Amino acid sequence: MADERLAVGVDIGGTLIKLGIVHASGALRVLTETSTSIDRPQEAAVAEIARAVARLAQGHDVQAVGIGCAGLVDAVHGIVHLSPNLPRWHDARLAEWAARELALPVAVLNDANAFTLAEAHAGAGRGCSPVVGITLGTGVGGAIVEAGRLRGGRHGFGGEIGHVSIEMDGPPCPCGNRGCLELYVGRRALVAAYLAHAGWSPGGSAYDLARGDRAALDPRLLYEAANRGDPAAREVFTRAGIVLGVALANVTNLIDPEVIVIGGGVALAGDMLLEPARRTLAERAMLGASRVPAVLPAALGVGAGVIGAALYALRGPDG
Amino acid sequence: MADERLAVGVDIGGTLIKLGIVHASGALRVLTETSTSIDRPQEAAVAEIARAVARLAQGHDVQAVGIGCAGLVDAVHGIVHLSPNLPRWHDARLAEWAARELALPVAVLNDANAFTLAEAHAGAGRGCSPVVGITLGTGVGGAIVEAGRLRGGRHGFGGEIGHVSIEMDGPPCPCGNRGCLELYVGRRALVAAYLAHAGWSPGGSAYDLARGDRAALDPRLLYEAANRGDPAAREVFTRAGIVLGVALANVTNLIDPEVIVIGGGVALAGDMLLEPARRTLAERAMLGASRVPAVLPAALGVGAGVIGAALYALRGPDG
Repeated sequence: MADERLAVGVDIGGTLIKLGIVHASGALRVLTETSTSIDRPQEAAVAEIARAVARLAQGHDVQAVGIGCAGLVDAVHGIVHLSPNLPRWHDARLAEWAARELALPVAVLNDANAFTLAEAHAGAGRGCSPVVGITLGTGVGGAIVEAGRLRGGRHGFGGEIGHVSIEMDGPPCPCGNRGCLELYVGRRALVAAYLAHAGWSPGGSAYDLARGDRAALDPRLLYEAANRGDPAAREVFTRAGIVLGVALANVTNLIDPEVIVIGGGVALAGDMLLEPARRTLAERAMLGASRVPAVLPAALGVGAGVIGAALYALRGPDG
Repeated sequence: MADERLAVGVDIGGTLIKLGIVHASGALRVLTETSTSIDRPQEAAVAEIARAVARLAQGHDVQAVGIGCAGLVDAVHGIVHLSPNLPRWHDARLAEWAARELALPVAVLNDANAFTLAEAHAGAGRGCSPVVGITLGTGVGGAIVEAGRLRGGRHGFGGEIGHVSIEMDGPPCPCGNRGCLELYVGRRALVAAYLAHAGWSPGGSAYDLARGDRAALDPRLLYEAANRGDPAAREVFTRAGIVLGVALANVTNLIDPEVIVIGGGVALAGDMLLEPARRTLAERAMLGASRVPAVLPAALGVGAGVIGAALYALRGPDG
């Protein structure tokens, strides 16, 4: 019998909280959003999230709630240890507090885990195993799903592809390591690489697109500049793609995935980023070019985090 | 009811083939060895291995045979594609040929997979999950065992820790990648690092231990030299340990293992190698020092490959 249960998925981002009602198949029924109250005490913020969930769930037969959140999340105990999106949260017992408010089972997981679970079950990785998911944004996250289940290792903290070092003597990373992938392909790295390469002055397409506002410079705008023929912007994505490919070869040699799904804001550059990554992967992986994993853009768009959180809540850690 | 079955395990090395009778618990009942006929056609060599297995199995109620072999091994189809120990073997259908000769089920797997399976079930990783195993020798191999099962990915070729790049622009590796771990901590790298550092002349302890025979210089001898106070030999292991620790941090950030078991000839250096590796791991892994995996020397000695191959044959890929 088909699983017809529904769950609410919640995706806590830096500026917005997305909420949706998700069917056990991964189909997204409703998607809404609300602003994040990052400057409120954590218990008050949780109460607010719970109210938004309750409003959305009204009239639907919801079985569970899943909440995805960036940062160091202990999915086993439902605790958000640290999150860049919620700087006032420390060791927040999110699952417990939210379950008390909602009188529903609540599961909590890392946002890259939610993304990968969604893409593996209902997106670009559907029918494949293992699936490696990578989110390229300000931070670079990732996760591994095998036979439909997250493979997070002992504490569930595995899959941190953004913090695989590809230059052991490279620049220091805030995580304590050196030469981490995130330092080369994260949002800040791309913007810095562009400015180092092209400078910042009227007549450069990125400058004009941003109307001279340096703070507006982001991967989406660089992608637009590249499409308008700005060679420095194109070079930024080519170079980032090559470095991404080095990390994908490492992941492939360790995990031998069937597919690698790339999402997040930086991935909007599509093949401008992914083609050099695929070429580098094929050159460097031990497996011949015919056996390396497919490197695919994410298929579920902005709802992936909501879908993955809901699926995790419905299926459980062994799901 | 306890599993009381027996299997023969075979470990095809570069100069010797080890064979043993192994209980389903991982206990090694008998261990023998025979020389490798690497210069014979592959089918003749297989027939010879089969005869040695049959001799050993006589009088024991053996249920299955497992064969471990270095190189690119397709465990699903029982094929040895390429093996450094068996240069005349290409796409050898080892499982099929041996099963025909022996009239027993035969399983074939990569030697580092066999090592890791043995250490996870009956050695240093017993009771832990995930277990990452690393074999440090001429080649550097590895595997991942989670909940008792090999996690080799789509084709079973995962776990290749020796070919994780830690310097994306580092020296080229025969595997096609650059800056692979094997280039820094494999047997050849250690010998080359020693010679570059200390030179090769009478009065240096490694020179004297090797009686001036440069070809005799190997990690075991370097370890003896280090123990006699040769500072260059000690420095070689410290530096290799640091680089190993960089790779262990990458593996930890991706896999979050409970324990990492290190075996192979280079690992005979013990804490002289493992202490700098542990320190570097604790400094670099995202998890705090209290949560990083234990880094342990292998516990099963030279029989690990035999034990792991036999366990794989008894338990199957899902074992």
